[in-house]
Amino acid sequence: MARIVMKFGSAALASTKHIQDVAKRAIAEKERGYDVVVVTAGMRSMAKELAEMACDLSDSAPKRELDVLLSTSSQLSSALVAIALQEEGYHAVSLTGWQAGIQTDDMYFNARIDDIDVSRIAEHFAQGQIVIVAGEQGINYSQNITTLGKGGAETTAVAIAAALEAERVDIYTNVEGVYTADPSHVARAQKLKEISYDEMLELSNLGSQIIHPRAVELAKKFQIPVIIRSSVVDTVGTLLKEEVGMEKNLIVRGVAYESDVIRLTVGYDAYSDASLADMFTILAKNRINVDIIVQAIIDGLKPTVSFTILKEEFAEALRVLEDSKLSLGFSFADFEIGLAKVSIVGSGMASNPGVAARMFDRLRREGIPVKMVSTSEIKVSVVVPQDEMICAANALHDEFNLEQALYV
Amino acid sequence: MARIVMKFGSAALASTKHIQDVAKRAIAEKERGYDVVVVTAGMRSMAKELAEMACDLSDSAPKRELDVLLSTSSQLSSALVAIALQEEGYHAVSLTGWQAGIQTDDMYFNARIDDIDVSRIAEHFAQGQIVIVAGEQGINYSQNITTLGKGGAETTAVAIAAALEAERVDIYTNVEGVYTADPSHVARAQKLKEISYDEMLELSNLGSQIIHPRAVELAKKFQIPVIIRSSVVDTVGTLLKEEVGMEKNLIVRGVAYESDVIRLTVGYDAYSDASLADMFTILAKNRINVDIIVQAIIDGLKPTVSFTILKEEFAEALRVLEDSKLSLGFSFADFEIGLAKVSIVGSGMASNPGVAARMFDRLRREGIPVKMVSTSEIKVSVVVPQDEMICAANALHDEFNLEQALYV
Repeated sequence: MARIVMKFGSAALASTKHIQDVAKRAIAEKERGYDVVVVTAGMRSMAKELAEMACDLSDSAPKRELDVLLSTSSQLSSALVAIALQEEGYHAVSLTGWQAGIQTDDMYFNARIDDIDVSRIAEHFAQGQIVIVAGEQGINYSQNITTLGKGGAETTAVAIAAALEAERVDIYTNVEGVYTADPSHVARAQKLKEISYDEMLELSNLGSQIIHPRAVELAKKFQIPVIIRSSVVDTVGTLLKEEVGMEKNLIVRGVAYESDVIRLTVGYDAYSDASLADMFTILAKNRINVDIIVQAIIDGLKPTVSFTILKEEFAEALRVLEDSKLSLGFSFADFEIGLAKVSIVGSGMASNPGVAARMFDRLRREGIPVKMVSTSEIKVSVVVPQDEMICAANALHDEFNLEQALYV
Repeated sequence: MARIVMKFGSAALASTKHIQDVAKRAIAEKERGYDVVVVTAGMRSMAKELAEMACDLSDSAPKRELDVLLSTSSQLSSALVAIALQEEGYHAVSLTGWQAGIQTDDMYFNARIDDIDVSRIAEHFAQGQIVIVAGEQGINYSQNITTLGKGGAETTAVAIAAALEAERVDIYTNVEGVYTADPSHVARAQKLKEISYDEMLELSNLGSQIIHPRAVELAKKFQIPVIIRSSVVDTVGTLLKEEVGMEKNLIVRGVAYESDVIRLTVGYDAYSDASLADMFTILAKNRINVDIIVQAIIDGLKPTVSFTILKEEFAEALRVLEDSKLSLGFSFADFEIGLAKVSIVGSGMASNPGVAARMFDRLRREGIPVKMVSTSEIKVSVVVPQDEMICAANALHDEFNLEQALYV
């Protein structure tokens, strides 16, 4: 029997009514003949309450114990969905991460899935049951509960789909699909019918909050089709897959932006490649996500390296740099806050060398200063003052005629 | 190293401040040189909230899923205590039921512990850690989460103590120990220094809410000393053990009482032992606790069986009887509400045949009607109108001179 994995986020599980709606959507797929796995995120109100309790007790609560706390949040939502399904007369069973066979590494609070043993899920399928898996959690090799950090529920859904060889994953969100830009800021934004994994990856990394890049990477790796769709209204969503058809000729497919970016600059008296490698190794070990990196070695000036991080990781990044100052060998560190990143994404860009130039030109004409630049095969990102972010996004949406990226 | 198990109830875990107090008590024992297991009950506010969510979704939520929900409650309290301990600089780790090796049967919502594999707890001891076990839960043979029902946390504590061959179990409660009667209703009640398992078992069964009979039974079976003590004030509690020393000569050691008792009466056209066995088998299978049973076979009258149950189980008991009416072969069923049970307990009673008579005489003099009677080697219970319960308890406390059961 064909299998499908459905993922619901916190907003889709916020009340009894929401949970009943989730059950109805799962039943609809079951009735279409699928074996169904529902992956639930944690209940947000509860997760907040739990974090507060832990904070009252300790400013530095051990992450192992925080994971024991936080994992209860999706354990609850999974059981509630199972109850709602049984109330509708369907066989259903909720599974925690360890019951669903989700094996992770040892990094509490931000664990990675190493492997999934789906034999138990398959057994429940054989009994005709809809299986609800508590997202965002697993078990490490010491039999301790771990949580998966940001994007954990989506990543769980895609990983289970890969292990089950499912037909596709449906990600139910509070938006109707992937747009050329955020419709709340760019009035002419259009919904896309399809988007490639790579383009979505760039869009995800660039701060469009629809689906976490971890989940997209995994979907790409295992070639799992993913549909981003609304948990509120019944419309066709946006399909993520490897090849994108009719819209392929569009040079730029979307504009993304992200606020609360911070630029850190580190200066050296003398520079070596080793010190650079050491610094980003240490940041990575502490799970600080570094985004744009710009290195400047100019004769007569001290060598510097600048990189951007998100506001949430600022304090931790400073701590890591401070702790490692001696071993890293840098002489000064500086930072700039109040920045934003604006990016254009499109797989047609690779064969169009003039795209970046056209972007810079338009921003110059709008009077928006560009602080940093980063490019890849399929995107160009610029760091601009946060005040100018929305203005830049609209200008670029217009520049690349994205209002014509008609949804077919 | 000597081992000790400490159990804390919901009231002792109600706030951050309470949890810090629990941590301090655990640290005190650790500093005395013990390997310490702390068993936590669920957080009451949370358990209530969870039950409400489930009720909103279904009037008959599957018990398997309710256990998934409810088990989060003690999982939370265990993690919070571990966080509080680590904040104080002590190594601590929380374990869920399945992590602590608590193997139960398949009866969701009211599971029994079959076995405990304490190897993981022992490993944590070897690393110098204080181990916090989420009480009231375990795992069944299908790898599903179970909860243990009433008295679950105490039972967990005693079972772990047995498996670890611990020196003793300390049950922290909202009372200072075991009294000759409830001090809030019987002004002259005295705290006992020691009490035997059997006496405590009778008192527990008789509705003194201090410790659940399941836990006492287990303690008796494995001869684990148990101390009932206050989680609020630092006083010597009451020691439960096999032999009771200096107070042995007291005929009656305590008066217990329990309100909200319901009498069910079932009548037969013709009576056979088989039908009686069938009925109580069916009730037991549905985990309905039947207390006093009185059977009346009087020439010329239809045979009847009366038994008492608690108010909470009334609806379920009626349902079971209704469902099984044909197979059980009874012709009518009747009930009386608004009753209470009052009992006197004492191991000295066995050799004093006049005790029951003295009890009935005193009640008669007080004008209190006796509706049912039940006796054992070490107790006599009577069912009386609920309005008369406190009056009866005080009269019997006076009758057997319990104000002289001085605490030594």
